[in-house]
Amino acid sequence: MRHGVSFAAVLTVALGTAVSAAAQAGRSQAPLVIREQGSFFVGGRTIHTVAVSGTPGGLLGTGNEGSITVDQMYVQYQIPEGGERGGHVPVVMLHGCCLSGKTYETTPDGRMGWDEYFVRKGRAVYLPDQVSRARSGFDATTINMVRLGTLPASALPNIFTFSHEDAWTLFRFGPSFGTPFSDEQFPVNAADEFGKQVIPDLNALLPVANPTYNNLSALAIRLKGAILMGHSESGFFPEEAALIEPTGIRGVVSIEGSCDRSFAQQPPPTPQEIAMLAKIPILVIFGDHIADSPFWPPLLSGCQQFVQQVNAAGGDATMLHLPAAGLFGNSHMLMQDKNNLQVADLILAWIERHVEGGH
Amino acid sequence: MRHGVSFAAVLTVALGTAVSAAAQAGRSQAPLVIREQGSFFVGGRTIHTVAVSGTPGGLLGTGNEGSITVDQMYVQYQIPEGGERGGHVPVVMLHGCCLSGKTYETTPDGRMGWDEYFVRKGRAVYLPDQVSRARSGFDATTINMVRLGTLPASALPNIFTFSHEDAWTLFRFGPSFGTPFSDEQFPVNAADEFGKQVIPDLNALLPVANPTYNNLSALAIRLKGAILMGHSESGFFPEEAALIEPTGIRGVVSIEGSCDRSFAQQPPPTPQEIAMLAKIPILVIFGDHIADSPFWPPLLSGCQQFVQQVNAAGGDATMLHLPAAGLFGNSHMLMQDKNNLQVADLILAWIERHVEGGH
Repeated sequence: MRHGVSFAAVLTVALGTAVSAAAQAGRSQAPLVIREQGSFFVGGRTIHTVAVSGTPGGLLGTGNEGSITVDQMYVQYQIPEGGERGGHVPVVMLHGCCLSGKTYETTPDGRMGWDEYFVRKGRAVYLPDQVSRARSGFDATTINMVRLGTLPASALPNIFTFSHEDAWTLFRFGPSFGTPFSDEQFPVNAADEFGKQVIPDLNALLPVANPTYNNLSALAIRLKGAILMGHSESGFFPEEAALIEPTGIRGVVSIEGSCDRSFAQQPPPTPQEIAMLAKIPILVIFGDHIADSPFWPPLLSGCQQFVQQVNAAGGDATMLHLPAAGLFGNSHMLMQDKNNLQVADLILAWIERHVEGGH
Repeated sequence: MRHGVSFAAVLTVALGTAVSAAAQAGRSQAPLVIREQGSFFVGGRTIHTVAVSGTPGGLLGTGNEGSITVDQMYVQYQIPEGGERGGHVPVVMLHGCCLSGKTYETTPDGRMGWDEYFVRKGRAVYLPDQVSRARSGFDATTINMVRLGTLPASALPNIFTFSHEDAWTLFRFGPSFGTPFSDEQFPVNAADEFGKQVIPDLNALLPVANPTYNNLSALAIRLKGAILMGHSESGFFPEEAALIEPTGIRGVVSIEGSCDRSFAQQPPPTPQEIAMLAKIPILVIFGDHIADSPFWPPLLSGCQQFVQQVNAAGGDATMLHLPAAGLFGNSHMLMQDKNNLQVADLILAWIERHVEGGH
């Protein structure tokens, strides 16, 4: 570990300050005092579309061509009162496949999400919807052109989502649909509620150079410094953003993503890229029951290898495999798990030590 | 740089978004004190889909069938500290066509939206995304089946949005694209920024009995009383919700919608329906320059007729045509206009008098 300090020591401090679930479950906490909040867009470009709608002549019968905006990224934010005390750095929390900014909000069983918790811990929090998802919209031109008959059905994007059944096993709620692991941290009684936030993913519309990478870089610059957090499909997006332009990226948190770029079906990071990433503190996080799923072990080992490579290149990368740190039963959706605030405290402790300078 | 994306491209994006950041820097109001905030879903039903993705065998190759959730409605909310003082009633703010909850958030030129303003005025505010929009997701089954070849292209939903050009004239930013009305209240210098929040509308996937109606009714019951506000495409949704189940609907605000149901291409309200709606206080709002657009006069007169019918049936309906009330230049997006807080004050005054009992 960098600086010769063991993560176990940091963990001891972090767990000692963890907020108990009971204290916050009853929502009897102090009011949340916000200095500023709102929403805006990052990126976006104007294109000329020949299919504003799927109807000849357009929605109003006045024509079906015009300018629309694509590749934009919606961002919501909250800045706590007094947040800059202690040199706190803003945190951007980006969701993964088939999900939206909701990932980091109130959990399916009604507990506080990381968005509010990090704000209560004095951090400005920025919550995007990925390009081509949710409030960021998507380019419907291709779908409309197929409807209009000017493109074949094979031109349609491969839209995907997760079924309830696949989510249960893939996200490691349990070994088979309806059966949880005995120590499962995901609130499986609210699995149906979780299903409501699983939505279609149209990333297949996007180029390999996903515009979200560029938008993340630009956001970090706009914020004059930020920690970028990604999850699953977007787990390695912070690194991709840093490889485009590291200015403003003060730290990276990669949660259960593909550090070898296997999700994006691209080659793993080159030595030159590793050298660039070695300039930014990186925290990689995985939950529990990895070995119980055929899907996850290669991703965990791929990220372990990535962490080793970054450190060998003189970087500051930390692998936080939760069961090795004494937290058991965490699912893929560890920001929604029953012990989500304990996990958040570990991240905050890492941020304080590795990004904010040990305050 | 990876992906061939230059720093210049990133910088362009970063600077392009710095305009609203500067506008936000002038925020000098008191902190916002929140008692509770979060998000949840209303409604939703589980269906069996035969096309979880557009690829045979599914995303993971383990099959393409399974259970998904559709018809759910995402809702964000904030409850101010001390909000119940004065008998304040929660307000649900629903967006219209081709837009999302962003409608009521920070304006395109960086000013406070109604969501924060109403919270500062002591109201709990609830911000949904319509069913089949944004964070509420949509049912991609049909699109996927067309891609898979099991349905013809003609089965595709008619997805629509507004081009920048059509939005300018239809939303009454000005008489022709790029030219504002001389007294235009919409921040036309931020028209490009507005374009980023215009997204595809998949309401064509939904039945005539739009699930959003039912979800609005359910939300008002869950909140033990709420004012439902709709806009444009959803302008008459509060009335539709009240006609399904009025319990909990303490008041209705219909902004520039079709009171004769012309948007939904359905027959206008019957005398029986008018009699039911006469039990709930209703505020109908239209902006300026109605006569300058061929599209809007029938909608204004249709709503004037509706207000007369409700009052003739013993109800409490008010038509607020802003120029008649001394506010000139308002566009279709009056919640984002430069005088949006003045308009909000008129709504709050109506709420205090007609819903909250004259406090």
